Amino acid sequence: MALVVQKYGGSSVADASCIKRVAQRIVATKKAGNDVVVIVSAMGDTTDELLDLAEQVSPLPPGRELDMLLTSGERISMALLAMAIANLGHEARSFTGSQAGVITDSTHGKARIIDVTPGRLRGALDQGHIAIVAGFQGVSQDTKDITTLGRGGSDTTAVALAAALEADVCEIYTDVDGIFTADPRIVPAARKIPKISYEEMMEMAACGAKILHLRCVEYARRFDLPIHVRSSFSTKEGTWVVSGPYSEGTEMEQPIISGVAHDRSEAKITVVGVPDKVGEAATIFKTLADAEINIDMIVQNVSAAATGRTDISFTLPTTDASTALTSLKKIQERVGFESLLFDDQIGKVSLVGAGMRSHPGVTATFFAALADAGVNIEMISTSEIRISVIVEQDGVDAAVAAAHRAFDLDADQVEAVVYGGTGR
Amino acid sequence: MALVVQKYGGSSVADASCIKRVAQRIVATKKAGNDVVVIVSAMGDTTDELLDLAEQVSPLPPGRELDMLLTSGERISMALLAMAIANLGHEARSFTGSQAGVITDSTHGKARIIDVTPGRLRGALDQGHIAIVAGFQGVSQDTKDITTLGRGGSDTTAVALAAALEADVCEIYTDVDGIFTADPRIVPAARKIPKISYEEMMEMAACGAKILHLRCVEYARRFDLPIHVRSSFSTKEGTWVVSGPYSEGTEMEQPIISGVAHDRSEAKITVVGVPDKVGEAATIFKTLADAEINIDMIVQNVSAAATGRTDISFTLPTTDASTALTSLKKIQERVGFESLLFDDQIGKVSLVGAGMRSHPGVTATFFAALADAGVNIEMISTSEIRISVIVEQDGVDAAVAAAHRAFDLDADQVEAVVYGGTGR
Repeated sequence: MALVVQKYGGSSVADASCIKRVAQRIVATKKAGNDVVVIVSAMGDTTDELLDLAEQVSPLPPGRELDMLLTSGERISMALLAMAIANLGHEARSFTGSQAGVITDSTHGKARIIDVTPGRLRGALDQGHIAIVAGFQGVSQDTKDITTLGRGGSDTTAVALAAALEADVCEIYTDVDGIFTADPRIVPAARKIPKISYEEMMEMAACGAKILHLRCVEYARRFDLPIHVRSSFSTKEGTWVVSGPYSEGTEMEQPIISGVAHDRSEAKITVVGVPDKVGEAATIFKTLADAEINIDMIVQNVSAAATGRTDISFTLPTTDASTALTSLKKIQERVGFESLLFDDQIGKVSLVGAGMRSHPGVTATFFAALADAGVNIEMISTSEIRISVIVEQDGVDAAVAAAHRAFDLDADQVEAVVYGGTGR
Repeated sequence: MALVVQKYGGSSVADASCIKRVAQRIVATKKAGNDVVVIVSAMGDTTDELLDLAEQVSPLPPGRELDMLLTSGERISMALLAMAIANLGHEARSFTGSQAGVITDSTHGKARIIDVTPGRLRGALDQGHIAIVAGFQGVSQDTKDITTLGRGGSDTTAVALAAALEADVCEIYTDVDGIFTADPRIVPAARKIPKISYEEMMEMAACGAKILHLRCVEYARRFDLPIHVRSSFSTKEGTWVVSGPYSEGTEMEQPIISGVAHDRSEAKITVVGVPDKVGEAATIFKTLADAEINIDMIVQNVSAAATGRTDISFTLPTTDASTALTSLKKIQERVGFESLLFDDQIGKVSLVGAGMRSHPGVTATFFAALADAGVNIEMISTSEIRISVIVEQDGVDAAVAAAHRAFDLDADQVEAVVYGGTGR
């Protein structure tokens, strides 16, 4: 008997009929001889509706109370799901994050899980019950207050509970068939990736692939827990996220590039005319760090000898831009830079693939494809298994499509990619 | 410094603007130098909407899950209320029933409070915070599951917490000005009762006055906790429910009758032709008790000597009628009664007043008033401070109005009633 942890997102439990459908799927898994723990998000737009209510009451609600409010969303969906399962003749018990033993720190709105004590879940499983758990929420160790885990929180709950319960697999149900080689809305020829390593998935998530959140993949990697990302609307196999990286050569079928991710949510700030003295760049980035701004890519121009000054550009989430600009403005005089430029019409396009390690020339092929597509590269950043470029936002679609084609990821070339070796 | 417990019902927190208004009232109480604990119900129609969702998912939802679902309603309202208070510059902390220490038995849907351990509330008060508590809910001592207290649950939560915290007063806010001598929709001349004893209030509540639930008054009486029922839409004094009964003679202004209550929610069942043998009535009522049906009034006719049979009539909540009829049908052969009659077109009209103890002739005056109004009496039941009659439902309004007038309760006679002694 296996222990299966399943997570259903908001769109999978959007209304009563969705909930009944999900209940049937859960019961089928139970009937197949598995122990089942289900993590569920709030129904469809519930969270947005609750946020809207909060906004009507307060422009800046205290985090503790906002968490108390938002966690009612999962409470509703999990109770309804347990009812629907009971209707099918199976025993289900719903548990809040607190009851399920999801212990967090006290950072309301983006709490981190620091312990999982799933005693009540084990008890329910021992009695043959299906356990339903509220995703996205926990209880703080210090204050015993209700917390939320922030973005990707329900996925993280699922992986954390699966790890603590030593589950055989964590199935993440969504409204698409799995992880694709690129966004199918941009590249109709994109294909589903059957298997991807944690490392590649983390790069994909960090670079804008929205199906799985970085945090949850990190967590799964730490505990070597297989994740199966699949659609709640079909029984097809989805994408398995498993331990890697594959050692090159042992899996001949591995493509060089697993996928092409893109992200339109970043902006670029350029600090113009920074005096080229030791410590000035440090001051700038210390200021941004103090304002809790996550910087992504950084480029510093070569200092112009005539002026002794340089330009520093960096990218950051667009939502953090005004805070960043305000903070930098405050240190302009002290640092002595000339001005600030701001551009939110940018996009990031990333190639991700463990295979690129052993294949020189990936960068050249990528850049050539972008040039052929008429897309100009503004910034570049690389890791061992990723190359990201910043391009103008209007060029993102063309860049993604060109890269997808250049690395033979289009669906009509699948056979060649999957079975034809890596000799390109 | 006093400790004030306030309870706001669903209509007082129906939307964002209502919540902000209530927040101002709470802050005003705090600013006046009081410690404040607030118990809040779910917003307006939330509970009905959640019940509707449950119905869409399951015709017979498990009690545990229904409680989990419904308790999200107060979670929403209490978090929003805490936010609104924070907006006004005061610290508020919301607590679920479980967090507030409302410990109950495990009877889902109508749990009873068996202990109150308000340590977290005391902690919040000690820090100068306003504590907001979800009404209507608790946590079961045995299973640690979330429970709801059933009808009148938020009032009961308020009184229980007020008692445990040794509050100076429990203010129950509602959408009317207090307890009236009769329903003002039926008797426009009805007036607000400034002060009423627990015993009278319990009789009023048991007889259909819907402002306060019987349970909560019983609880307050046990702990001798003053309840102040008042409107959340005005600052007028409402009705004080306090310890009594008043010893006759010491309070000359006390009227004979405190008020006239009515109830249209009961039905009458008549068991026709019951053999007049020892134990038959016991069998009938044992059967009803086993089916968990609450019987109100009972009348047994004098046995007809010729047949050796008698008729037994009783009243019960109309909602329980079909269960009762089914249960009785099953024992018809064993008991040997002839048939069952059912009438849901009845109403109960009750006179309540501690003053009637020392005033003979109340019954005569009451019955004469009903006769003058052309209302026929079908059943009668009395206690030391109450007389109730069952009449046909169409006659309820006329009966209430006639009784109200006969006992000088109409508003244009208030001066006489309140100050003029009891010499009638």
